[in-house]
Amino acid sequence: MSSADNNKLSRRKFIRNSAGMLATGTTLGATAGQLDVPPSWQKTGRGFSNYGQPRDARDSPIRWISADRSIEANGVSWTPLHDLEGTITPNGLHFERHHNGVPDIDPATWQVSIFGAVEKPLVFDLNALHRYPMQSKIAFIECGGNSNSLWHSPPSQAPAGYVHGLLSCSEWTGVPLSLLLREAGIKPEAKWLVADGLDAAGVTVSIPLEKALDDTLIALYQNGEPVRPENGFPARLLVPGWEGITHVKWLRSLQLSDRPLMSRFDTVSYTDLLKDGSAERFSFEMEVKSLITSPSPGQAMSGRGLYELRGLAWTGNGRVEKVEVSANGGRSWTEAVLQEPVLDKALTRFRAPWRWDGSRAILKSRAYDSAGRVQPERDALLKAKGSNAYYHYNAIVSWSVDSDGAVRHVFA
Amino acid sequence: MSSADNNKLSRRKFIRNSAGMLATGTTLGATAGQLDVPPSWQKTGRGFSNYGQPRDARDSPIRWISADRSIEANGVSWTPLHDLEGTITPNGLHFERHHNGVPDIDPATWQVSIFGAVEKPLVFDLNALHRYPMQSKIAFIECGGNSNSLWHSPPSQAPAGYVHGLLSCSEWTGVPLSLLLREAGIKPEAKWLVADGLDAAGVTVSIPLEKALDDTLIALYQNGEPVRPENGFPARLLVPGWEGITHVKWLRSLQLSDRPLMSRFDTVSYTDLLKDGSAERFSFEMEVKSLITSPSPGQAMSGRGLYELRGLAWTGNGRVEKVEVSANGGRSWTEAVLQEPVLDKALTRFRAPWRWDGSRAILKSRAYDSAGRVQPERDALLKAKGSNAYYHYNAIVSWSVDSDGAVRHVFA
Repeated sequence: MSSADNNKLSRRKFIRNSAGMLATGTTLGATAGQLDVPPSWQKTGRGFSNYGQPRDARDSPIRWISADRSIEANGVSWTPLHDLEGTITPNGLHFERHHNGVPDIDPATWQVSIFGAVEKPLVFDLNALHRYPMQSKIAFIECGGNSNSLWHSPPSQAPAGYVHGLLSCSEWTGVPLSLLLREAGIKPEAKWLVADGLDAAGVTVSIPLEKALDDTLIALYQNGEPVRPENGFPARLLVPGWEGITHVKWLRSLQLSDRPLMSRFDTVSYTDLLKDGSAERFSFEMEVKSLITSPSPGQAMSGRGLYELRGLAWTGNGRVEKVEVSANGGRSWTEAVLQEPVLDKALTRFRAPWRWDGSRAILKSRAYDSAGRVQPERDALLKAKGSNAYYHYNAIVSWSVDSDGAVRHVFA
Repeated sequence: MSSADNNKLSRRKFIRNSAGMLATGTTLGATAGQLDVPPSWQKTGRGFSNYGQPRDARDSPIRWISADRSIEANGVSWTPLHDLEGTITPNGLHFERHHNGVPDIDPATWQVSIFGAVEKPLVFDLNALHRYPMQSKIAFIECGGNSNSLWHSPPSQAPAGYVHGLLSCSEWTGVPLSLLLREAGIKPEAKWLVADGLDAAGVTVSIPLEKALDDTLIALYQNGEPVRPENGFPARLLVPGWEGITHVKWLRSLQLSDRPLMSRFDTVSYTDLLKDGSAERFSFEMEVKSLITSPSPGQAMSGRGLYELRGLAWTGNGRVEKVEVSANGGRSWTEAVLQEPVLDKALTRFRAPWRWDGSRAILKSRAYDSAGRVQPERDALLKAKGSNAYYHYNAIVSWSVDSDGAVRHVFA
């Protein structure tokens, strides 16, 4: 396919031709070297602050809030993925999903207890936890309900982050849970970990012990600083690659058991009704998924010519192996470049050059992971799962670029 | 050496023995499974916010400000490295060094120009830059003057970050400068890039063209969100591994030249007087360096037993290859574990178990990089550089752990 078909160019060709083809820099001409003296050179700037802030709330990316009017602390706030670049989410824009608001925890009296099927029940305060070996991991957290409006028609025209942004990625640091459980002494009958939180909803989740002993952390730091209240201060679970609800915030207790608790959060929520009326329970791992963030709905094209398609890919099963993009609704695909380092269970940024000829185009991205899974088309997902599902939507996302430069979400 | 000599244990031994030796978890006993109902379960928590904040300024890590009283917007604010973990610096705690404050730039009218020894002078506004291919890089920025009080006695007893914290690490995303320079057409005589900023100090720096064409970015994003005003909004240079002053903020123009400008910032500042009275100019690359952040001055030990020594290592020359730690003032050394992934020109977190027997100990860390360099002892650095130097202090840092558990900075 030629570039005139709205298909993509190779990166090599993009860079080789960029001088002539992009031409987005404007010629400076005769004034070169005689730039105006800017007003900012004539006035001392603002001074220092103990803790910095973004520029201006009117201009800067914000989280949209979708909270229940009848229960004001029950809802979500969305990471504005369409306004961000790279893979790290700044702490102020990490998504939130609270079932009954953010509790105010006193770090001086906080403690977490380990009990149940253990030899020696233990409690740990913050000072105690700081004595243990720590690990850091750059990992995404995605709510099991992310993107769930797309189980149904019509496609949402909200900005991409306000549909798919119950998804964030941070460098988390904390104590491997396995160290603490082994210190308490795991009894042979222990098969499940039941973790609960100090929020008013008393979120309680059952997690297979195997995962708790694998890569689960009690996270104390998020992107370097102490975990923020809305993200679980002073301590939350990090359960890499698993649905958000398992990453219990404001950690209160950890009980080992021979069986899951079958709490409200194990049963009523975070399970999917299948076509045959049965429920798919304990669907912990987040599936392979991707999304083009630029261009995306709400952003308009600024004329014909070369663009860079940019997006995010992720999987709860290993690493992102490959991302393909299409500009013709999936008739043909080309591999995008993955930004290194590509890390296990972390967001991965992909980029691909694209020349827009001004005619209608349908943009798609399709991710593959190291577990051999591939992101399905929406029709295939609905065919497999039926229309009663609510969680774990991971179908290929399609944007229409119309001839007037508007970008719309379509099912295509 | 045995652990009684305040030397370290192997990690394997630490983990194997941790149950008995740490004993920092308190036995829960008979109340197991009958935990109190916490007050936070009985009260709806706080609701959502568009942009999140740390917990409480009284408790949370802050930047100390060292500003000149006579020129209030000239000074620094320090990243509190002693309060942080992992390697990413949250944007609110990135260090600042302003020569005359933070200018307020209107993104709608901002532009950067490329002129001088080019075929076709060009200007780019923000919309134009967004059309170009981007790259992300996790990289540290360190002020050339970081740690400079240690050129002289006595050793500072300030918390570690307020001596060594003109150092931060972020995921930066932007347009490779090489693309824009090549679009303008580099004339054969061009050997230097002269970059200036829109701040009232008009910071102007000369950078060899080779580095500008290598891995230098015009950075538009910092840890995902737009670069903040205090870090150069809307665009700054990222010159990986090179001293902070080269990462020009609030970018105004880029001039190609056959020679450096020899601006105030090329000559009066950011050059070191050597023993013989000559000046070491254009010392761009930051040297291999490391620092134990926990324990560190201002933190007290909480009793005898096992601890984890934690710190940061970095180099402007490739990757951190190895970090060794000593608990006996450098008589013997043991290798620390480096947190993966170890990235080129990024902060690297190291950790090593240490059993404190309650007697006085001298802690040190020593970093090696992939360029074959090793961090020198202070005496050796002073012997080589003399006592007129002001920048590029990278000697081994020593903490004394006294028998009362106090941690002090010493020259040892």
